[in-house]
This record gives sequence, C-alpha cells and structure tokens, in this order.
Amino acid sequence: MPSSKSCNEQTGLSAQRAAVIAELAIASGPRVVTGHDVRAQHANTLTWIASELPDAVVFAESVDDAVKVVRVAGRHRVPIIAFGSGTSLEGHVNAPFGGISIDMSRMNRIVAVNAADHDAVVEAGVTREQLNDHLRDTGLFFSVDPGAANATLGGMAATRASGTNTVRYGTMRDNVLSLRAVMANGEIITTAGRARKSAAGYDLTHLLIGSEGTLGIIVELSVRLHPRLEAEFAAVCEFPSVSAAATCAMESIQSGCCLSRIELLDDVMLRVTASAGAFPASNCGAALFVSVEGTQRAADEHMQIFACLVTAHGGKVAGIAASQSDRDRIWKARHDAFWSLRNSWPGQAYVVTDVCVPISCLATCIAETTVDATRLGLTAPVLGHVGDGNFHAIAVIDPNDSGARGRLDQFLKNLSTRAIAIGGTCTGEHGIGQGKAYAMPGEFGPALDVMRQIKSALDPMGILNPGKIFPKDAPQDVQGAE
Amino acid sequence: MPSSKSCNEQTGLSAQRAAVIAELAIASGPRVVTGHDVRAQHANTLTWIASELPDAVVFAESVDDAVKVVRVAGRHRVPIIAFGSGTSLEGHVNAPFGGISIDMSRMNRIVAVNAADHDAVVEAGVTREQLNDHLRDTGLFFSVDPGAANATLGGMAATRASGTNTVRYGTMRDNVLSLRAVMANGEIITTAGRARKSAAGYDLTHLLIGSEGTLGIIVELSVRLHPRLEAEFAAVCEFPSVSAAATCAMESIQSGCCLSRIELLDDVMLRVTASAGAFPASNCGAALFVSVEGTQRAADEHMQIFACLVTAHGGKVAGIAASQSDRDRIWKARHDAFWSLRNSWPGQAYVVTDVCVPISCLATCIAETTVDATRLGLTAPVLGHVGDGNFHAIAVIDPNDSGARGRLDQFLKNLSTRAIAIGGTCTGEHGIGQGKAYAMPGEFGPALDVMRQIKSALDPMGILNPGKIFPKDAPQDVQGAE
Repeated sequence: MPSSKSCNEQTGLSAQRAAVIAELAIASGPRVVTGHDVRAQHANTLTWIASELPDAVVFAESVDDAVKVVRVAGRHRVPIIAFGSGTSLEGHVNAPFGGISIDMSRMNRIVAVNAADHDAVVEAGVTREQLNDHLRDTGLFFSVDPGAANATLGGMAATRASGTNTVRYGTMRDNVLSLRAVMANGEIITTAGRARKSAAGYDLTHLLIGSEGTLGIIVELSVRLHPRLEAEFAAVCEFPSVSAAATCAMESIQSGCCLSRIELLDDVMLRVTASAGAFPASNCGAALFVSVEGTQRAADEHMQIFACLVTAHGGKVAGIAASQSDRDRIWKARHDAFWSLRNSWPGQAYVVTDVCVPISCLATCIAETTVDATRLGLTAPVLGHVGDGNFHAIAVIDPNDSGARGRLDQFLKNLSTRAIAIGGTCTGEHGIGQGKAYAMPGEFGPALDVMRQIKSALDPMGILNPGKIFPKDAPQDVQGAE
Repeated sequence: MPSSKSCNEQTGLSAQRAAVIAELAIASGPRVVTGHDVRAQHANTLTWIASELPDAVVFAESVDDAVKVVRVAGRHRVPIIAFGSGTSLEGHVNAPFGGISIDMSRMNRIVAVNAADHDAVVEAGVTREQLNDHLRDTGLFFSVDPGAANATLGGMAATRASGTNTVRYGTMRDNVLSLRAVMANGEIITTAGRARKSAAGYDLTHLLIGSEGTLGIIVELSVRLHPRLEAEFAAVCEFPSVSAAATCAMESIQSGCCLSRIELLDDVMLRVTASAGAFPASNCGAALFVSVEGTQRAADEHMQIFACLVTAHGGKVAGIAASQSDRDRIWKARHDAFWSLRNSWPGQAYVVTDVCVPISCLATCIAETTVDATRLGLTAPVLGHVGDGNFHAIAVIDPNDSGARGRLDQFLKNLSTRAIAIGGTCTGEHGIGQGKAYAMPGEFGPALDVMRQIKSALDPMGILNPGKIFPKDAPQDVQGAE
C-alpha cells in the first residue's frame, strides 16, 4: 500500500517522495515539474470532488520514460497516476496518496495508419480530434466521441469511454484492437495483434480497457477505423415530453432502425442548447437529435422509417440537416450542451453524472430520476445517449446552499441504486474513479473480490492509481503493504 | 498444482480421487458417472490430440451442483474440466491430470428472453440451435454460429467462438453482455448487468470469455439478440483462383460493403461441398459464399455493389438465393463442409486448424500457406471467414504414413508463426487448449506472464482445467503446489 496519505497535505515532501523526485529529475531532466500550478492542473477534477495534488508531474515523451517512472516509483512504493488531458469526471486523476502524475500528452505520435485494414496505431497521448484530422483524406474516421474533444485515446481506453455514435459504432471496448502498456513491475506488454478477432489466451485488452490506470499505464493503442459513408442526415425531432421522446428512442432501437446517433435532451437542455444559436429555440418538452448514415438510398430510407416513429409518438421532425456544415453545427451544439448550461446559469455549481440501463427501462428510469430530483429540491436536467440506454443528469447546485451537498449525494446514490436494481450500471461512460467507488459493492457483489484479486496480483504494491475504483472501507491494495 | 499426472493411466484410482468421487456421489447421486465409455466421450478431442480421460463425469443440473463440485474438487485439489458438447478442436476438454469433467449440458434452461432489450438469459448448457428455435416467433435471433450446431453457449463463451456472420454481428466477445460463473473458491459471481455498455470496474465478462474454463466455470450467460431483417440474399460467386477470391473479399471489406457473411472455399472445398447437392459443381478455382441483409432496398443495393466487385476480380455470381429454403441449403452446405470432406475421402485423418490475420495480409497468407503445404507434401484445402481475415486449413493425412505427423506439426507451426509475424493470431476462433499452447509465448511474449499472474491469483491451486492455454515447459500453476 502506498505510504501514508498525503505528503501533499503537509508543508513539505517526505524524504521518500523527495528522493523519488530527485531520482526522476536526474533521469528525466526538465520534464519533472513540482510547481503548484502544474500539480493543481493535474488534479483538476471538473466536479464537486476536491482536488488532491500529486507531489510531482512527469511529462513522458517515450515508452522508455514511462518505464523509468514506473520503475523508480515502484522501487520507492510511490503512487503513479496516469494523466491524459484531465477531462474525466469522477476524480480519476486525483492523487489522494500523493505521488507522481505521469502526463502522457506529449506521447502524441500517430505511429501508423493501416488504411487497408481500417486500423491505426497511436501513442496514448493522441487526441481523438488529432487522429480524425490526420485521417481526413483517407475516407476513414475514428468513431468514439466523448464530450471532451481533446480527450486522449489512452485516457479514453483507460476509462472505457463512449459518445454519441456508440449506438452504431460501439465504445472504446469495441474499437480498441490492442494495447501496449507498462505494468506495475515495469514490464512492457502488448495485449494482442491487429487481427479483427482472436481466440488466443486471456483478453488482456479488455481487462485494461476501463481499468482507470490501476493495472497498467497505457502507452500505445491499435484502434479500429470506420469508412465514412456516402450520405448522412442529422435531424432535430421535437416531442411533447421526455417520456414520449424516450419511448420513441426505445422503439426505434427495438425496431432495428439503423441510426448512427440518437440523443435525448429534456426541455431545459434543449433551451440552453438552442441558445447557442445552432437551431431555433422551441417550447416542446424534449427533443431527439439523430443521425442516419449509409448509401444515399439507405440513409433516405432509415430517415423515413424513423420519421414515422417520431410521428407515432406525437413528435415532429423540426429540421433535417444534409450538408456537412449544418450537421456539424447541430452536433457541436449537442457536444457543447454542458457548457451552454453553465453559460446560461453562471455562478452555479454543476455535477454531471451518468447511468446506463436496459433500453426497456429507460423511459421509466428517466421519469423516476426527475421525480427524485424534484423531491430533493434539485434542478437536474437530463440528456444522453438514449440509444444505448445511457443518460446523464446534470445537477445544478447553488454553492451558497449549505444543505445542497447532502441532497445531491442522496440524488446520486438513488440514481445509481435505481439503475443497478433494474439490471443497469452506475455508469455507462464516466467511470468509477473516486466518485462512484461507493456503488461498486452494490453493482458487483462477490465479483468485486475478483477484481481485487486481479489488482493485487498485477500491482502487489498498489502503486498504480491507488484510491480509485475500489471503495475505501475495503482497500484493494492490502498486499505488499509497507 | 494438481497432484501427480494421470490416476487415469493407472489401473485404479488413487485413494484421493476415489475419495472425491465418493464424496460427489453422496452429494450428487446418480449424476456421477465413472464408466469408461462416458469418460472417453468426455475426452473426445475430434483431432489428432490423444484423448486423456477424466476420472469421473458429473452431470450438473444447477448452479448449486457446480458449486458443490468445485468445492469438493478444491478441498482435494483435483482438476475440474468444464464440458459443454465436446466440439472443441484443440483438446480443451482433455484431462491430462485426470480429475472431474463437469458436464453442463443438462443446465439447458432458457431463463428469460427480454425481447424489448434484444437480450436473453440462458444457462450454460443451452445450445445455439435450441436458443434460435426458442426465439423463432420473436423476430430475433442469436447470431454466433460456429460449425457445431449443437455447441453450448457456455462452451462458446469459454472458447470465444465465432462463425460465418461474425463479419456483421461479431464473435462471442461482442455478443455476451454478462456471465455468471463459479470461481475456483466456489464463489458465484455475476460479471455485469444487462446494460449495453458500462464503464464500471474491470471487465470480468471479457476476461472469462476465451479463458477456456481455466478461471471459472460459466453457468449462465446474458447474450445479445439481433432483429431478423426484412430481406436476405445468399449468393455463390465463382472465381478463377483463391487469390482472386481473397482479394475480392479484402476489397469488399475495405470498401465498407455491408455483407453479413463472406466465406471462401478453395477448389477442393468447393467440389466436396457441391457434392452434397446444395448447388451445382463447378470447376472454378475458388468461391465466395456471401449473404447480405437489410431492408429489401438495402439488400438489393449491397448485393449489386458486391456483384461489381466480383466482376472486377474476374469472378461471376453463379447464383443468388432469395428464399429462406434456398439460403438455408447453401449455408448448411457451408457449415457441413468439413463433414463433406470427410465423406469424400474416407479413411483419412483430418486436422482442422485456423489463424486470423489483418485483412490486407489475407490473400498473401493463404497463398503462402498453400505453398507450404505443397512443399511439405500435405494436402490442406482452405476455407474460412475471410471477411474477418480468418481462415481454416484442413490437413488431410494418411494414417498409414508414418512421417506425416512430423510434417503436419511443421505445417501447423509454420502457419501460426506466419500469422503472428504479420500482426495476426495463431487462432481466430478455435482457441488454444492443448494444441496451440506452444504458440502462446511467440504471440504474447511478456503478456503471457500477466496471464499467468491472473491465473495464479484466481485459481491458486490450479484446479480449473489445468494443462490448457499455458505451455507445459512453464506451468501456470506453480503457486499453491502441493
């Protein structure tokens, strides 16, 4: 177990931490930074979770750098927290036991694009926008699109990220073919080749995807690419209520209608999103933003099928965007929805959460969540990737309301419990980090012990991102304690 | 480590094994069988790998039965080998250290069909045909279709099986939402809920998929179902050569042409398959069997796109089957190809192997494989799921040729090495078992040590299917040795 909590809460570093930093400085030179601002930036949680600063930040520029950091930290039993671009939402990059934040953003080479195989090999610090810019002339694209445009692919793999077009193209789980990672003992492993499928050995690729830097430091990825299709439409569809929109989303999935995206916004999110000017404001109760892709004929056909479902649920197709620029405008507005909310109501605190449920339970789960928010005196507009059964609630909190935090905690716990009770999960895409560790025993029961056994086996000293995923009252890193 | 090899090679059981069987007999009554024929049936490898019989077979009828068997075996450190329907090809169900074969075929209840969520919950012994028969009136189907129609879903998950329509619908990796398993310590875990995606915790579902019964005994699965689409065509397309057919397959995938199946048969496989009467025999060099699905318009459109590619590669569409019965006839012929080969050349021995490579390397890899077979004096016709870069070679051996075995070993090793060298895998769907353990170090390097660490952590006594996946010269089960 990493040594006692929080050198960073003390006025100075422990002798041990100072020795580590000195050793890294000798090995890595100017890439080791101990200034407060850089350390604070690397523990910026974007949420209500308090920042906990690392003792130092190392900017890795090569796999060798990463190995060096892991070996030094391992020798001294000091935590290592992998850092991509710091856009995670559940305290993933916090350093509750201090330690070294290893910033991967300078490892941003696109190693290879194998266009004929529809795959690319990239270093962990490559961002999704960087990769897609690079692919612009190939007719291919990388599909996974979380809210943060500058998210690194390493971070996205580590948190099993997804986004708006997961309903067609899948999450990181479906789009990573192989990972290269530095394990806690400093060994470099490659989890698989580039073949589309394999029946050889344990699936270490998927074990590392979503492990949040607690099992290994991802340094390189082979990812799937998809061909850009001939035609694409985006449409904004208005509904009288969230329930009508959610039910339409459910039925479109159940009918096999081939959508690339289907995003729900409730009335509040629709208004603030419209306020950014991408489309006319409306007073309807909810909206679905959808896109269809395919050959021209297929896109036409599926748009027509979907439009019938919209009408059947009392909605209307308010506008169809066929040009690239119009589509981009709509999807940018959707991606920026959270920031539009913040701009609309400045001075408030915002807590974004997410759950994912079987699609048949979606409409009911959203309705119960809204009722619960009202009961607790919270404003919590809803939006999400409803084609996957995944939705977000954004709780808006008055920072001067001293009782709000308690009510917020209750709201978040109720939401996780509700999702798990109906066969869902406490998080569809944000991950566990620190913020949802409390929900792990309820969701996994005895399977959590299996996760602990794996953690102890692969990181016996508990140096990799300690304090994440596993709830505090039963620490995962009991083996190898100092 | 399980105690000394092969009580089953002795004339009688060791006292220890006898005690285990007695204990199980008291607990399970008539479901414990020790007769030779039943034990031999449970170690039938279907291949050149010699059968190694378990000491007893227990027919599990409930999760409690499975727990009981694991606990008794664990107490006495006796191996347990999970058995589905015995159709694996690499010695997965052999008992090299003796022990208990736990037959899951009686755990064949379909627990739930959640039609609205496109998923089903089934016990591990449910077969894929049984599930699809059950789903007949729902408009849904379970997609994964390995050669063995009676394969159990538990076995298919344990070996990460796939089949002809993986190119569209994915392998077991993509179609299992959650697993229930009995771990080596007798604990029952459930790896996930039924949500389509989750970012919560380590992905134990995928860790167990493909683990070949070495990490846990799968007792129940939640699997994805897919809607049957409006229209489907199947077509047989003839080409002048394997190279032309493989290149056409590559380009159709690269072009994004939306096929549900694309199967290659070389001239030999085509002739023996045609001999079963499903379609007229042809003297061409190779064929692609394809299917397209979608709305009527989409299926028409993609069949036309594919037909253009066929022509561009010197091929011709020899026949299109639109009716269900015609399609079934063609796909049954494809599924039965191996048996047609056996019927055509009776008295020979057959060794089926498979590899999977990046699609851009497919045509070259097949060509080099054929050259190697010729060089080694072997007949090894080729067929496979070429849309995934996955192909099979079936070596036909004269059992009276004493040198054939050595040449066969060389052929198999060359094929694995060739596939791995170009970024592929030594097996796309058959798994490792005993037969391909030799290839694991070459494919995984240091990652194999990580697999060993996981194995040791989750099965410290090495009771779960020992002797599989990990090569013999570095046993995985060194921890907890007696």
